[in-house]
Amino acid sequence: MQATSTTPSVTIDLGDRSYDILIAPNSLRDPKTFDTLPSGETALIVTNTTVGPLYAERLTTSLETRFKSVHVVTLPDGEEFKTWETLNQIFDSLLTLACDRKTVLFALGGGVVGDMTGFAAASYMRGVPFVQIPTTLLSQVDSSVGGKTGINHPQGKNMIGAFHQPQLVVCDLETLNTLPQRELSAGLAEVIKYGPIADLEFLEWIEANLDRLLAREPQALAHAVQKSCEIKAWVVSQDERESGVRAILNFGHTFGHAIEAGMGYGKWLHGEAVGCGMVMAAELSKALGLVDEAFVHRLRLLVQRAGLPTIAPRLDSNDNAGRYMELMRVDKKADAGETRFILIDGPSHAILRPAPDAVVRQVIDASCA
Amino acid sequence: MQATSTTPSVTIDLGDRSYDILIAPNSLRDPKTFDTLPSGETALIVTNTTVGPLYAERLTTSLETRFKSVHVVTLPDGEEFKTWETLNQIFDSLLTLACDRKTVLFALGGGVVGDMTGFAAASYMRGVPFVQIPTTLLSQVDSSVGGKTGINHPQGKNMIGAFHQPQLVVCDLETLNTLPQRELSAGLAEVIKYGPIADLEFLEWIEANLDRLLAREPQALAHAVQKSCEIKAWVVSQDERESGVRAILNFGHTFGHAIEAGMGYGKWLHGEAVGCGMVMAAELSKALGLVDEAFVHRLRLLVQRAGLPTIAPRLDSNDNAGRYMELMRVDKKADAGETRFILIDGPSHAILRPAPDAVVRQVIDASCA
Repeated sequence: MQATSTTPSVTIDLGDRSYDILIAPNSLRDPKTFDTLPSGETALIVTNTTVGPLYAERLTTSLETRFKSVHVVTLPDGEEFKTWETLNQIFDSLLTLACDRKTVLFALGGGVVGDMTGFAAASYMRGVPFVQIPTTLLSQVDSSVGGKTGINHPQGKNMIGAFHQPQLVVCDLETLNTLPQRELSAGLAEVIKYGPIADLEFLEWIEANLDRLLAREPQALAHAVQKSCEIKAWVVSQDERESGVRAILNFGHTFGHAIEAGMGYGKWLHGEAVGCGMVMAAELSKALGLVDEAFVHRLRLLVQRAGLPTIAPRLDSNDNAGRYMELMRVDKKADAGETRFILIDGPSHAILRPAPDAVVRQVIDASCA
Repeated sequence: MQATSTTPSVTIDLGDRSYDILIAPNSLRDPKTFDTLPSGETALIVTNTTVGPLYAERLTTSLETRFKSVHVVTLPDGEEFKTWETLNQIFDSLLTLACDRKTVLFALGGGVVGDMTGFAAASYMRGVPFVQIPTTLLSQVDSSVGGKTGINHPQGKNMIGAFHQPQLVVCDLETLNTLPQRELSAGLAEVIKYGPIADLEFLEWIEANLDRLLAREPQALAHAVQKSCEIKAWVVSQDERESGVRAILNFGHTFGHAIEAGMGYGKWLHGEAVGCGMVMAAELSKALGLVDEAFVHRLRLLVQRAGLPTIAPRLDSNDNAGRYMELMRVDKKADAGETRFILIDGPSHAILRPAPDAVVRQVIDASCA
């Protein structure tokens, strides 16, 4: 699959499951964006009540030049709706429209829409093609790329899902202009993440350009999305199904998932939990002697400047640390009951390892309000 | 993965997803059966209220030599329970037990248990290993082999699922002794199927040995299971994800699925619907000039002798043929709204093609009560 020569793109190299990420303003309005898609008669756009009114019409117009029929299904907006019941609305639409195996699904929205649409595409008739059209910074730099799809279970986030790669990812930078500031900040958490785990130069660039990003300067956003996708592409191409190195992309997510689950999904945005979780993971790295206080300070400052929380919430009035550890054990990074953490052992290098309970408890206690 | 030298086995050749089908009496009682499985601390046996009381204990005993903890989840029995709600019982168990990605699921039961357990294994934490232990003839000769997993949707059978290959299939022929006669007959439908689509010699063998099979003579059953698995393995190895030749395994299933959906899942057994559906597909093949009346007669007689229905049910008092065609359009073999049929164009050769509506209507009208 080739991008048009004028559009910056990143390629995810996965053999016959390879695909491009197109990064440009206004790509949604351009029917050429979708030139490389497989043929099919029906397109189903999956979106939510927030994004649909803004962008579904222009996407429909672009797709109508290619598909005989284009339909839209609109889901409720929010992490708390990332459930089987909402997923089933997509299946209901597909079956009511008598969609066949060549139907292409389009995920138009943030991470929740993308994860659910991807899982619907993975499961409908045991697999149909889909396209990611992420409209939030978080989904453009992270969740739309790499083929992780799924829904939440009351007992754990993203516990039910599939690896199912999209045919194409379209990052229309224009859509970031309608993003609430709180969600822009949440997206910056995942941008910041790529620095400590993989790229010191990028970390320095973010530190120097954070104000431009917060002000949504188009060139700064374009660079942040492009660079983040390049790093993610490099990691995913080495380890599609997260049996090894890919786990480093979850830096901050082990603590973060505990926060999200403990507070109830949707209270904190995913990016907010990850921002705070990165600071906790950095503190744990320090407690284990892997990094110094200067590094933790540097990361905390950046997370703070991005508008993200750095003080963790209390999840239990009696045994707060115990509650965190219980929630982390059920996280997918747990292996045979042992929680492994993504830690930083240098300014741009991550490792995956367990940590003694007592040290983890100390870090949680020191991090909480 | 190698079977022990004394156990007959068939290998499904799918590169790094290859696996063995072990076919032997009393293999459930032998811990060696499970020697080749990947290591893991926890095993979860998924079974139903009918099969569990008969075989869960002996399987647990065998597995306890290998796994630290062995748990059992018991689902309600029947096609009408092949739903998200039942599937979720498996997820609830996995999460309550804090099962990790190395947990091995064991599907102990018929096709419904196998399909649901397989889909749970495909989806839990985006994929964990599983083992098929089919206890019905139908699942031993067909559904446990090939990696098709899934659940039903109110608007269509098996509409939601995944391709997820097991690590091992264990056919304990001993379990067929407790099978109700009606289900033995239903299983014979899928055995018979392999004749017309692939193997004239096997068709002749079934005709000559049907009474021995109905009387459950161990050697006859062993041969039928072995031969069926060999043919299925040969087809699946060529086309894992059913993009081509694998569709021939659905001979009789297009009409059969319409019968099952139209009657309400569970009224007719799957094998009964397939038996009747094969006769209808043979009639359609004749109507299109592909086979002669002698072939249709031969197949109808065999289906009848197996104890299966050959007269199709009426699904609608006004437009019966229209209802059939509507139900078949939503079947997964439909492509861009056009129903394709698996037809026979010689005594052991199947093809996939559409058929004119008028001819299909005639065949339905002539086949119904």
